[in-house]
Amino acid sequence: MTRRKIIIDTDPGQDDAFALLLALGSPDELEVVGVTAVHGNVPLARTTVNAQMVVELAGRADLPVYPGCPRPMVKPGFTAEYVHGPSGLDGCDLPPPAAPLGDRHGVDFIIDTVMAAAPGEITVCTLGPMTNLAVAMIKEPAIIPRLAEVVFMGGGFFEGGNTTPAAEFNIYVDPHAAHVVLASGAPVTMVPIDVTYKALMTPDWLRRLRALGTRAAVEAAGMAEFYQDYGNKKFGTDSYPLHDPCVIGYLLRPELFNGRKCHVEVEIHSPVTSGMTVVDWWNVTKKPANCLVLRDLDNPPFYELMLERIARLP
Amino acid sequence: MTRRKIIIDTDPGQDDAFALLLALGSPDELEVVGVTAVHGNVPLARTTVNAQMVVELAGRADLPVYPGCPRPMVKPGFTAEYVHGPSGLDGCDLPPPAAPLGDRHGVDFIIDTVMAAAPGEITVCTLGPMTNLAVAMIKEPAIIPRLAEVVFMGGGFFEGGNTTPAAEFNIYVDPHAAHVVLASGAPVTMVPIDVTYKALMTPDWLRRLRALGTRAAVEAAGMAEFYQDYGNKKFGTDSYPLHDPCVIGYLLRPELFNGRKCHVEVEIHSPVTSGMTVVDWWNVTKKPANCLVLRDLDNPPFYELMLERIARLP
Amino acid sequence: MTRRKIIIDTDPGQDDAFALLLALGSPDELEVVGVTAVHGNVPLARTTVNAQMVVELAGRADLPVYPGCPRPMVKPGFTAEYVHGPSGLDGCDLPPPAAPLGDRHGVDFIIDTVMAAAPGEITVCTLGPMTNLAVAMIKEPAIIPRLAEVVFMGGGFFEGGNTTPAAEFNIYVDPHAAHVVLASGAPVTMVPIDVTYKALMTPDWLRRLRALGTRAAVEAAGMAEFYQDYGNKKFGTDSYPLHDPCVIGYLLRPELFNGRKCHVEVEIHSPVTSGMTVVDWWNVTKKPANCLVLRDLDNPPFYELMLERIARLP
Amino acid sequence: MTRRKIIIDTDPGQDDAFALLLALGSPDELEVVGVTAVHGNVPLARTTVNAQMVVELAGRADLPVYPGCPRPMVKPGFTAEYVHGPSGLDGCDLPPPAAPLGDRHGVDFIIDTVMAAAPGEITVCTLGPMTNLAVAMIKEPAIIPRLAEVVFMGGGFFEGGNTTPAAEFNIYVDPHAAHVVLASGAPVTMVPIDVTYKALMTPDWLRRLRALGTRAAVEAAGMAEFYQDYGNKKFGTDSYPLHDPCVIGYLLRPELFNGRKCHVEVEIHSPVTSGMTVVDWWNVTKKPANCLVLRDLDNPPFYELMLERIARLP
Repeated sequence: MTRRKIIIDTDPGQDDAFALLLALGSPDELEVVGVTAVHGNVPLARTTVNAQMVVELAGRADLPVYPGCPRPMVKPGFTAEYVHGPSGLDGCDLPPPAAPLGDRHGVDFIIDTVMAAAPGEITVCTLGPMTNLAVAMIKEPAIIPRLAEVVFMGGGFFEGGNTTPAAEFNIYVDPHAAHVVLASGAPVTMVPIDVTYKALMTPDWLRRLRALGTRAAVEAAGMAEFYQDYGNKKFGTDSYPLHDPCVIGYLLRPELFNGRKCHVEVEIHSPVTSGMTVVDWWNVTKKPANCLVLRDLDNPPFYELMLERIARLP
Repeated sequence: MTRRKIIIDTDPGQDDAFALLLALGSPDELEVVGVTAVHGNVPLARTTVNAQMVVELAGRADLPVYPGCPRPMVKPGFTAEYVHGPSGLDGCDLPPPAAPLGDRHGVDFIIDTVMAAAPGEITVCTLGPMTNLAVAMIKEPAIIPRLAEVVFMGGGFFEGGNTTPAAEFNIYVDPHAAHVVLASGAPVTMVPIDVTYKALMTPDWLRRLRALGTRAAVEAAGMAEFYQDYGNKKFGTDSYPLHDPCVIGYLLRPELFNGRKCHVEVEIHSPVTSGMTVVDWWNVTKKPANCLVLRDLDNPPFYELMLERIARLP
Repeated sequence: MTRRKIIIDTDPGQDDAFALLLALGSPDELEVVGVTAVHGNVPLARTTVNAQMVVELAGRADLPVYPGCPRPMVKPGFTAEYVHGPSGLDGCDLPPPAAPLGDRHGVDFIIDTVMAAAPGEITVCTLGPMTNLAVAMIKEPAIIPRLAEVVFMGGGFFEGGNTTPAAEFNIYVDPHAAHVVLASGAPVTMVPIDVTYKALMTPDWLRRLRALGTRAAVEAAGMAEFYQDYGNKKFGTDSYPLHDPCVIGYLLRPELFNGRKCHVEVEIHSPVTSGMTVVDWWNVTKKPANCLVLRDLDNPPFYELMLERIARLP
Repeated sequence: MTRRKIIIDTDPGQDDAFALLLALGSPDELEVVGVTAVHGNVPLARTTVNAQMVVELAGRADLPVYPGCPRPMVKPGFTAEYVHGPSGLDGCDLPPPAAPLGDRHGVDFIIDTVMAAAPGEITVCTLGPMTNLAVAMIKEPAIIPRLAEVVFMGGGFFEGGNTTPAAEFNIYVDPHAAHVVLASGAPVTMVPIDVTYKALMTPDWLRRLRALGTRAAVEAAGMAEFYQDYGNKKFGTDSYPLHDPCVIGYLLRPELFNGRKCHVEVEIHSPVTSGMTVVDWWNVTKKPANCLVLRDLDNPPFYELMLERIARLP
C-alpha cells in the first residue's frame, strides 16, 4: 500500500476525535496534509479549537488546522450539543491549543492543496457537514477531476436517519452541500450509519483502551464514555458506535468493509425527507452509479486496529 | 376470537389472489362482506374480472365484486404488467366470471357498508393503491370514526422501496391516497415490504400446495410459479415473498407478527422520494403514532396456515 | 345563442349568490340543471343551506341543491369566515330553505348528469374549491370527454394570490383538485382574480341595485354591502370586485372578456407556492395549451347585464 | 449625495455593459471599487473578458476585474446565448482586454473589501446570478452586517418570469444563491422585471445614443441594436428594455423609482416554480419585510440620465 495523502475535514465531536487519532496514529499508510474545521456538531469556533486540541493530543502540533465555513449553504444552522455536550468534546480534559491556526480559510486550503498536487493525489475525508468541500467545488470546479476520492461519513438508507426519520445528522445539516458533492462526478465513497451502526464499541474494548494508559488513550476513553451515554439511552444497549473513525478504517483496511456502487441522490426538496441519501441499491432507476455505499463491516478487527494505532500515540 | 367483518379492496395480481383465497378459506374468523376492485397491478377492467374469477374459484360466486376507481387521485396511472403478466393473473387458467358485478361503485360500497354497520364493526383491507378508501373518506368523512381498522399492504422503510429506491408500488402509484388514509385519524396497520419480504414462499411449500390437488390449490400454484419468477430473477434467490396475504395472515394470527406504533408520513412533495412511507421508528419527531408498522413475521407457521386454509377450498 | 345546460358547483359566499342570481335570471340562455354545494368559504353544512336559500330567493325552490364533499382532497380544511362572515352570507336576511335537499351526493349528481346527457351537452361551473368535480373525475373518468366545458373562478397570476402571496383562495384550499381538473384534458376556462379584480362594483351601481326594490335585489344589495367591506379595508378603495358572477357573465356575454389559451399548471409541491396557478402566458415552456385564461373585462356592460338580470327575479 | 462605494458583480451581457458604462460615467456619485465577474448570460471565461473590455471601453483599464464562480451553487449551469449571442456582447467590436485580471477570486475580493471597509461603507450590486455574493456570505458571514446594501437585478412577480412562467433568468439560474442573499438579513433592494420591463429603450433614443459619436456611445449603440432584436421579436414591439442599468439608475436617482418594502421568498423546492421571487406585496403572510421591491420607474428621465453619463465617456 502506498502512502495516501488526505485532508481531514471535521467538526469534532468525540467520534471525530477518534478518526483523527486513528489517522495520525497511522503515518505509514496516511499522510494527513491538513485538517479543515467546519460547523456541525458544535459551532465552528469550537470545532476549530477542538480539532487543534486533538491534533496536539496526537503529538502533531505542527499540523495546521484551517477554519472553514461557519454555516450551512442554504439552511439555517443546526448543532448537536444534545449528543456531544456543550464543548463538543465533553469527557476529555485537554489544554487550549498552543499552535497558531492555519493561514487560510479551510475552503481555500482544500482548493490550493488539490490544485497544487498531482491529479489523483489528494483524498478528502469529510466527517461533518460537507459545506467546505461543496463550497470549494463551487468556487473552483477544477478541483473535481483532480480528486483521488471523497470519503464521507454521513447518510443512511436501510437504517433510516438519526436526526429525522429519513436523514442522518451530517446530511440533514447541509443537504445542499452533500448534493453538490454527490452530483459532482468525483469518485465518492459513502460511510453511512448503515455501516457505522455496526461499528459497536463494547464496554470491554473501552476498558482495554483506558488500560493502555497513554495520555491519548486515557483522554479518548474519557470522550468515548461521555459519548456513548446518549446512544445507550436512546437504544437501550451498552455498546454504541463510533461513526467517524470508520472513514479512516476504510482507508486503512478496505477489506474489512463491504458495499456496492450505486446511484445516490441527496433529497433537497421535501420538508419530510430533506437530507435523505436515497440509495438505489437495486438499480431500479437505471441511473449510473456515482457512489460506493458501504453497508457491512468486520467489527472486531476494526476495533483492534483502532486500539493498536491509538497505542502508538503519546 | 369473534368473527370479523372485512371489506377486501384489491387489484389482483397473483398475490392478491392468495390473500382472497386465504380470507375466503377462513370463514370462522372472517366474514368478507364485499370485495372492491381498484386500478393497480393492471387496469381496473382486469382487476375487476380477476377479483371475480378468484372469488368464484373459492366457491363464492355469491360474493359481489364492486369496481372502484380506475385511476390514481392526482398522478397519472401506472401499472405493473412487468411483474404480473398482461392479465395480472398469468399462470392460472380460470374461466370468465359467471356472476354479475356488484350494483354500485366500489367507493359507494365502502361508504354505504361502513355507515350502515355499527361503529367499529367494519375493517377495510387494502391490497393495492388506496384510491377507493381515500376517495370514500373525502366523499364521506363520517366513515372515518366508524372504521374498526384499516390494514393495508404497502410501503416500506428499512428495505427502501421496490418501485423507486424509496417507494413501494402500492404507495408509489397513488401516494396522495395513502396520505389521506394515514392522516385520517382512523386506526391503521401497515404491512410494508419490510415484513412481507420475510414472507418467503419456498420451493418445497409450492410443491406441497400443488400436491393438495384441489382446483383452488392447483390454480394458486400456477399463479405462484409465474409470479415468483420475476422476483427470483431480480434477487437471485429461489424463494420469493407473497406480499398481500400477509394482511389476512395478520388478521387471523396477529401473534405471528411484530411491529411498533409509530408516526408514519407519506411523502407527496419530492420527485425523488414521492410515495415513500416515512416511518418515525425511534420517535425522533415526537409526533403522535398514527400507525402500527409491522416489521417481523414468523414465516413457517404463516405458510402452514395458508396451506391449511387453501386446502379447505373446492 | 343556444340555451346552455350548466351545473353550478358553489360555496356561497356572497359573490356566489350573485353568480346564482345572474344565472337564474338568465333562463333564455342558461338552463341550470342542478346546483352542487362544496366546502369552501364556510363549511359544507352552511354552503348547502346558503345555496338553497339563494335558489329560493330566485324563485326556483324546484331546483335541487346536492351537497358534495365537506373537505379538500389532501390538505386540511380551510374556510374564510374572515371575509364572508360566520354564515357565509352575512348581510342578507333570508328564511331557512323550504325545499328538500337533492337525492344524491353532489359528486354523483355531476357524474350521473354528465353520463346521462349527450357528449358536449353539460358545462360545469365551479365557484369554489374544485373538490366535487375532481372527485367525480377520479371516480368516473368517463365524464371527462363528455364535458362541454369547465369554467371555474379561481387562480391568479399577474395579480399574485389573495390568500397567500402566490395562491388564490379557491385553489389554495384544494390545489390537488384544481390540478386534477386542469390536467384532465377537458376544455377549461379559468376566471382568475386577474380578471375578477377588474369586475369592480361601484357605490353607484350598488345604489341602483338597491333601488330596484325587488326582494332579490334588496337582499343582494345587503350581501354586497357586507362583502365589500373586507376588500375596501384591505385595498383602501370604495369599489370591490364580485368574483364569482364573472363565470356566469362569461357564459352569457363572452365578447366582454379577453384572454389567451395557455398552459396552466397548478403548483402542488412547495410550501411557498402551493395552490398557485402557473400560467405560461408567453409559452416559454412550449407545452400545449390546456386552458383559456381570462385577463380582461369590459366592466360597465357586465354590471349592466347583472342589474338587468337580477331585476327579472322576484 | 455622498459618493457611494460599490462593487459591481456582473455577467456581461449587453445590458450589463450599459450598467457598467452608466456607473463608470458617474464618478461624482459612485466609486466603483471593483468589478467581479460571474457565470450567467454566457460562461465565466467570457463574462470576465467582457467585463474587462467594457471597463476599458469606459477608459478605466486601471479598474481590476475579479473572476468569480463559474457555476451555480446547486443546479447545473444554464446560459443565455439565445439572447445575447455567443460572445455575450454581440453587436460591439471591442479589442481583447489589455489589463491583467484582478489578483484574487471574485468571492474573496467581495469578502476582503467588505471586511476592510467601515461597516455600511460598501454596496454590492449584482447584475447576474447571485452566486458570488452568496458564496461570500457562506464563506464569511461576517460580511453580512457590514454591507450598506445589496441591489440586485433579478426576479419578477407581477410580470411572472422570463425564463420559465414563474422565474426570471438571474434567479432561475441560481435560485439557492438568491435565497441565501434574501434570507441573510442584509438590506436588499430588488430590481425585478416588473420595473425593468418599463425601462423601455426607444428607437429614437437609440439614434440619439449613436449620434453622440463617441467610441463608448457607438459601441453601446451596436450592442443595444443586437440585444433588442430578441425582445422585439418575442413581444412584437420596437422598444425593448435594458434591465441591468436600472440598478445603477436607482443608486443615482432613487426618486425616479417606486416600490414597497415586502417579504420576499425565493422558491427553491418545486420543479414548477423554482427560482420564483414570491413577493408578499399585501403582507398576507405577516412576515417582516426583508426587501425593497421596485415596481415603477419614470422612464424618460432615466434614459436621459443614461445618455448624459455615457456621453461623458471617451
